Amino acid sequence: MSRLPKDLQHTIEFFEKLPGIGPKTAKRLGFYLLRLPQADLEEASKHLSTLKNSTKFCARCFNLTEQEICYICEDRNRDSSTIAVVEDVLALLSLEAGNHYSGVYHVLHGRIDPLNYISPDDINIAPLLSRVKKEGDNLKEIVLATNPDTEGEATAMYIRERLDEVKNGSAFSITRLAYGLPIGADLEYADYMTLKRSFEGRKAF
Amino acid sequence: MSRLPKDLQHTIEFFEKLPGIGPKTAKRLGFYLLRLPQADLEEASKHLSTLKNSTKFCARCFNLTEQEICYICEDRNRDSSTIAVVEDVLALLSLEAGNHYSGVYHVLHGRIDPLNYISPDDINIAPLLSRVKKEGDNLKEIVLATNPDTEGEATAMYIRERLDEVKNGSAFSITRLAYGLPIGADLEYADYMTLKRSFEGRKAF
Repeated sequence: MSRLPKDLQHTIEFFEKLPGIGPKTAKRLGFYLLRLPQADLEEASKHLSTLKNSTKFCARCFNLTEQEICYICEDRNRDSSTIAVVEDVLALLSLEAGNHYSGVYHVLHGRIDPLNYISPDDINIAPLLSRVKKEGDNLKEIVLATNPDTEGEATAMYIRERLDEVKNGSAFSITRLAYGLPIGADLEYADYMTLKRSFEGRKAF
Repeated sequence: MSRLPKDLQHTIEFFEKLPGIGPKTAKRLGFYLLRLPQADLEEASKHLSTLKNSTKFCARCFNLTEQEICYICEDRNRDSSTIAVVEDVLALLSLEAGNHYSGVYHVLHGRIDPLNYISPDDINIAPLLSRVKKEGDNLKEIVLATNPDTEGEATAMYIRERLDEVKNGSAFSITRLAYGLPIGADLEYADYMTLKRSFEGRKAF
C-alpha cells in the first residue's frame, strides 16, 4: 500500500482488525471519516478510549453496566424468581427487545466449546451455581436460553446437571427454550433438524 | 434499545452512522471492541481525533498528504508531464496499486452530478485548468481517468472541452482510459454496453 497520511493509515488498519471488515471496506470507512465534522470524530475518540473503563459487569448477573448492579437486576418490577441463562449480552438484548420477558438474567459470557478450548470453568457457570445456592428457595424457574446449536445445547445440558446437584430440595424448575419453525418460515426450505424438532414438539390446537 | 453502558452505546451509534454498517453489525463491532486491549483502543482513539487535522490536500494535485506537497508530486522519478485526472483518492490508490503508471495525478474530489447538485464548480476543475495553463508547455498528456459511468463520462467530456479552451497552442494530448472487457470476464455474462465498447475498440492482433 502506498503512503497515506499516518492517522488515516492507522485508522484504516484499526478498521481492518474488526470482524467482518475487509481491506476495501476499511479503506472506504477511513475516507468517509475524513468527511465527518471534527466534533463527531472527537466524540467517538473519547468514547473509544473510555469504553473499557466505563463498562463493568453486573455483580449479580454479569450483564454490562456502568454501575455495580445492572438496570435489569435493579428494577423492582422484574420477577427475580425467574432467571434466563444466556450466552452473551447480545442474546440478552434480543430477548429484551421483544418486551415479553419480565424475569432476570445470568450472562455466561461464552459457551462450552472444547474445540476452541473453552471449558465450563472459562464461563460464568460457577457464579450461577453459587447464585442459585444462595437464592434457591426464592427461585421458581431457570430458563436455559443458550443457542439452539451444538455448543449451546451441550452448555445447557451441562448446566442442568450441575443445577440438579446444587438444587438441594429447592422447588425451582429448569426449562429450555422451545425448538420449532421460526415465524414466517416456509416448510419447503426448513432444515431437517428443525422440522423434526418442530414435529416432536407439536401441540394441541 | 435498552440501556447499554453510555460509552458502548455511543460507540455503537458512531458505527451505525458509517456507510454500509447496519444496527446489527454496529452492535457486534461495539461488543467486539470491549475485548480489545485498552492500548489498541487508545491508539485508535488518538488517530481518530487527529485524523482531520493531520490530513491535508496536496497543493499541486489534491491527493491526501501530511505535508504541503504529496509524495507522488515530490517524487522526481515520476513523469510530471503526464497528469491522470481521477475522481477521488481511492481511484488514485487503485491506479498506484498496479505500479504501471509513472505520471502524476490531479484529484477532482468528486464528479459532475446534477442530480445530486454537484456542479463543475464544486469539484477541483478550476485548479486543474490553472495548473494546465501554468505547466502547459511542459505537458505531454492528460489522461481523463474518471469512472466509466454516466457521471464520470460527463465529467470527462466537460473537462475535455474546458481543456481545449485553455490549451492555447500547447501540444499535450487529451486521452481517456480504454473501455472493454475486464480481464477474466466471460462474454456470456458481459453487459451489452461493455460488449459494444469492447467491439468498437477492437485492435489488430
